[in-house]
Amino acid sequence: MEKLLPSIKNVKDIKKLNIRQLKSLSNEIRDFILETVSKTGGHLASNLGIVELTLALHKVFNSPKDKIIWDVGHQAYVHKIATGRKDEFHTLRQFKGISGFPKRNESEHDIFETGHSSTSISAGLGYALARDLEGEDYKVICVIGDGAMTGGMAFEALNHAGDVGSDLIIILNDNEMSISENVGGLSKHLNRIRTAPTYSRMKEDFESIISSIPAIGKRVYKTAERAKDSLKYFLVPGIIFEELGFKYLGPVNGHNLYELVDVLNRAKKIKGPVLIHTVTKKGKGYKPAEENPDKYHSVSPFNIKTGKPNKNDKKIKFSQIFGNALNELAKNNEKIVAITAAMPSGTGLDIFKENYPKRFFDVGIAEQHGVTLAAGLASNGYKPFFAVYSTFLQRGYDQVLHDVCLQNLPVVFSIDRAGLVGKDGETHHGVFDFSYLSHIPNLTIMAPKDGKELVEMLKFAVDFDKPLAIRYPRGYAWDLSKDYPDSYNIELGKGEILEKGKDIAIIAIGKMVKNGYEVVKKLKNEGINITLVNGKFVKPLDENMIIEISNHHKTIITIEDNVKVGGFGSKINDLLIKNNYKGEVVNLGLPDRFIEHGNVDELYKLYELDVDSIITLIKNKMKG
Amino acid sequence: MEKLLPSIKNVKDIKKLNIRQLKSLSNEIRDFILETVSKTGGHLASNLGIVELTLALHKVFNSPKDKIIWDVGHQAYVHKIATGRKDEFHTLRQFKGISGFPKRNESEHDIFETGHSSTSISAGLGYALARDLEGEDYKVICVIGDGAMTGGMAFEALNHAGDVGSDLIIILNDNEMSISENVGGLSKHLNRIRTAPTYSRMKEDFESIISSIPAIGKRVYKTAERAKDSLKYFLVPGIIFEELGFKYLGPVNGHNLYELVDVLNRAKKIKGPVLIHTVTKKGKGYKPAEENPDKYHSVSPFNIKTGKPNKNDKKIKFSQIFGNALNELAKNNEKIVAITAAMPSGTGLDIFKENYPKRFFDVGIAEQHGVTLAAGLASNGYKPFFAVYSTFLQRGYDQVLHDVCLQNLPVVFSIDRAGLVGKDGETHHGVFDFSYLSHIPNLTIMAPKDGKELVEMLKFAVDFDKPLAIRYPRGYAWDLSKDYPDSYNIELGKGEILEKGKDIAIIAIGKMVKNGYEVVKKLKNEGINITLVNGKFVKPLDENMIIEISNHHKTIITIEDNVKVGGFGSKINDLLIKNNYKGEVVNLGLPDRFIEHGNVDELYKLYELDVDSIITLIKNKMKG
Repeated sequence: MEKLLPSIKNVKDIKKLNIRQLKSLSNEIRDFILETVSKTGGHLASNLGIVELTLALHKVFNSPKDKIIWDVGHQAYVHKIATGRKDEFHTLRQFKGISGFPKRNESEHDIFETGHSSTSISAGLGYALARDLEGEDYKVICVIGDGAMTGGMAFEALNHAGDVGSDLIIILNDNEMSISENVGGLSKHLNRIRTAPTYSRMKEDFESIISSIPAIGKRVYKTAERAKDSLKYFLVPGIIFEELGFKYLGPVNGHNLYELVDVLNRAKKIKGPVLIHTVTKKGKGYKPAEENPDKYHSVSPFNIKTGKPNKNDKKIKFSQIFGNALNELAKNNEKIVAITAAMPSGTGLDIFKENYPKRFFDVGIAEQHGVTLAAGLASNGYKPFFAVYSTFLQRGYDQVLHDVCLQNLPVVFSIDRAGLVGKDGETHHGVFDFSYLSHIPNLTIMAPKDGKELVEMLKFAVDFDKPLAIRYPRGYAWDLSKDYPDSYNIELGKGEILEKGKDIAIIAIGKMVKNGYEVVKKLKNEGINITLVNGKFVKPLDENMIIEISNHHKTIITIEDNVKVGGFGSKINDLLIKNNYKGEVVNLGLPDRFIEHGNVDELYKLYELDVDSIITLIKNKMKG
Repeated sequence: MEKLLPSIKNVKDIKKLNIRQLKSLSNEIRDFILETVSKTGGHLASNLGIVELTLALHKVFNSPKDKIIWDVGHQAYVHKIATGRKDEFHTLRQFKGISGFPKRNESEHDIFETGHSSTSISAGLGYALARDLEGEDYKVICVIGDGAMTGGMAFEALNHAGDVGSDLIIILNDNEMSISENVGGLSKHLNRIRTAPTYSRMKEDFESIISSIPAIGKRVYKTAERAKDSLKYFLVPGIIFEELGFKYLGPVNGHNLYELVDVLNRAKKIKGPVLIHTVTKKGKGYKPAEENPDKYHSVSPFNIKTGKPNKNDKKIKFSQIFGNALNELAKNNEKIVAITAAMPSGTGLDIFKENYPKRFFDVGIAEQHGVTLAAGLASNGYKPFFAVYSTFLQRGYDQVLHDVCLQNLPVVFSIDRAGLVGKDGETHHGVFDFSYLSHIPNLTIMAPKDGKELVEMLKFAVDFDKPLAIRYPRGYAWDLSKDYPDSYNIELGKGEILEKGKDIAIIAIGKMVKNGYEVVKKLKNEGINITLVNGKFVKPLDENMIIEISNHHKTIITIEDNVKVGGFGSKINDLLIKNNYKGEVVNLGLPDRFIEHGNVDELYKLYELDVDSIITLIKNKMKG
């Protein structure tokens, strides 16, 4: 059969196809995605699972007049291919290439940018209300996974949307997964629906029962009538959504294009809010991903035949160092408990989960609850480690402030993926945490210079009786202990001088200590001696050490992989200002803008945080 | 009858009383609360509504062994009176007096501090899980209002708690209100429950129907069996909670102590998570509050007989200035829409609501959804003003960052109650907003020097096509236009010099411009001329003006009613450091700690932000 994909230039070409052709196209798109993502890396399993649904949406609705909003957004690859980005698809997630998430500057079909979960219903309702005010007539469709549905703001939006009654179509893409296994009462509810007999059949049966009852007195008759009215409350699946004000349709097989097109056409005609429940399989069509959707959620380049990553990971990642260390520490301390928000494997907690299942809590995509659950556990004598990506902890800002820090509770935030994360881009870089955490009273904030220091900081954390944040980067760890074997002692609020030079001092934090280290080594080879300080603590700062440094250096360079505004350097500025430092200070860090996606090294170069840029800066300083 | 309240020293004394005595005690406590709050001000209606429930809880459970967690916490007055704080109750919300919220340092019966809503289930589940790990045996009870239940994190916690199955008792105190009228599908669901026939009666009727059906074939028989099993799904009210994994009990009359004690005793015996639905009346027992629970939610001192506030408010508050101005602006601009999270009257939006009901959206206690709803409306061509208290916007931090600012959408955040708010204390001061907002790319942040400037800033906001935050204080506005009639022009990133002096310059922002103004006037009378700058913009800073100031002054004093860490002064420090300022800088603002409750003026004095303290500081600077 002739291939269809080559002729798909935009959504109009999809509309021309009949269902059988769409089915063929689905298979071609699966191959195309697999081909591309096996080279670029990216979100695989969710995109393989949503091929038919995406095509059905573009068949039935008229994007961009009709508005389609992708919750989280990492499942929008098919949508990108369908809306004119097929030819650029090979640049996926590459520096200057197309994004792995919806981006308004890429296409008029990307109408709302996402990256964090559970926002689509709110955004969609906003679109719908604006449409109603304008008196216009088009559809707004939100596509949200069952995992994202556990995020509290999705409920806030359901609750509001069900009440106001605007036309709004929500597609609950139920793949029984968030990233890892799904969690919670809602998930069980969805499971009951999937396994229940269908509505229409049950309803028929039941009506025949009701009608066979002779009228045996008015009271009973009325009850029977009420019962009939109430039928939907026990026979309709999706009672939660119905109760919240939605018309529930489903469940439908999300890989059957006939069913999908049919249900979407039905939904199109219904007034008011509708929820369509589709059941799909993550990784559909690619066996390794079907079998291990968790592993194939987000992948590095891999071999399609074997399913194995191209790089053989012998090096160890920060996440694993964290997971292993916590697992060790938990052996001798029964009070240690671990919390994740749907990231048991991404955070390295899987080993802990395996060994201490009772002390491990996966709260689902629910960072707010995760933080306050930790506060409750800590209030009652436990020592919770909440392992969470820097960007996702943003969701729990108020809870960190109020529920943990106001009460000064000994919760540890193990903040993974801090700094630049690379190809996931704008919504996933962890470059705000110093800024959103450092003004919170009672909170201590650390960042290790290497993997070994992370372990020492975790040991320190176990006995520390106040709120604590440890932030560390994505990816492979390194080890500076050959050069600085005695530098691993952790003391509250104490930084350390790694290299003593003159005139110029680098004060770096976290990952940037490594860059500082390389700068200093290279310059040393050229006979230039620079002081290198490992900050260790963003809060409390090692004020004495920094003042001491300022007394002996004309120029201080701060380096951090956080935005400069409100970051580590800014704290040092405040201190130096207070102490009337008369020398020069240069703050290096990320600028006051959102950072695009791309390879981390490319991005560091772009923002002049790489070793060469820092050396150039220093040499310029020395000249003039 | 002899008064019972005088003999109540602690919870043990409550346990001794029988139901009739508890009923009498309820009335006495109502009078006592009314008496006190009419003098101190505070949260009235919710406390009058929860008297019986609180007494029933202390009758049935053994606090502090059993753990009672009060969601939001402003309804804990009865609990405070019952747990040994009766004699200090007259100091309620006064400086150094007892707090209006649960405080762990006040009593062993206050086991978790609250202030923001929807946290209690998460905290309670944390307590319960810790108890289970310890193998201990006691009860954990969360008391949460129907308003707080709309907050997303309550749902996150319900979803998790229903799944893990630990013993946990949630009391849904349904008063059909959050602060204002309740909003949302959940609220309608609760209403259906309240008006539905009771479970037991319906069940009896229905079973008689089922049993009267002759067995007419296997299929129908099976259906009937299933129907019986499913009875609870349509006859039990509270299906949403049942579906999420809770045993639902109720609804019960929350003012009937017999019913309450009975249902609590039943709940005590049930394994796993239980939700008790109590229906209460806000303001119960005090007519003016029953009739206007919104008005009597949080009150200033008032006359019990007339129900009227002691102070006759002729002065106008910032909230009203905002509300009136937006109402005016909306006349000529149909794109303006307003959003509140359950605070239509507190934010001054009631007039807008009245005049533009279709353009007004109350999302309930759901700040996250509120922010992203605004983003959706802005994406689709509207101009949303989200009016929100500074402390509550903390809940929407991630949404401000991602959904509004990443997409650079023209949403206006009208941030009310910024700076110190006074008697509500630690959880309600709006002293972090500069710090949590200023590092967000694309966001412009302003703060007006007086009421008139707020109006000008709102006008500016209407035509500004990017994300914008305007933060202003709680309480009465003032007017500096007599002294500076020409100072009301708003231009992006432009501050203004109000007074030209020498040597010392004050750069103030928002409310602190007024303090700066008074300082400068007083010193002028003594022949000392100080420069006074109104910053107007925290972001972007008026860099040229500040550098110009720094070129001509030896000392720069920054003043803000935000924490110093990450605040306005810190931004100025960064700028001055970058420009090699060699003079002295003094940053005035709030320290890096949580600020207690008390009269605002007392607090300003304590933290040396009052006029006298600043004058003393300046005189000291001049001396040496």
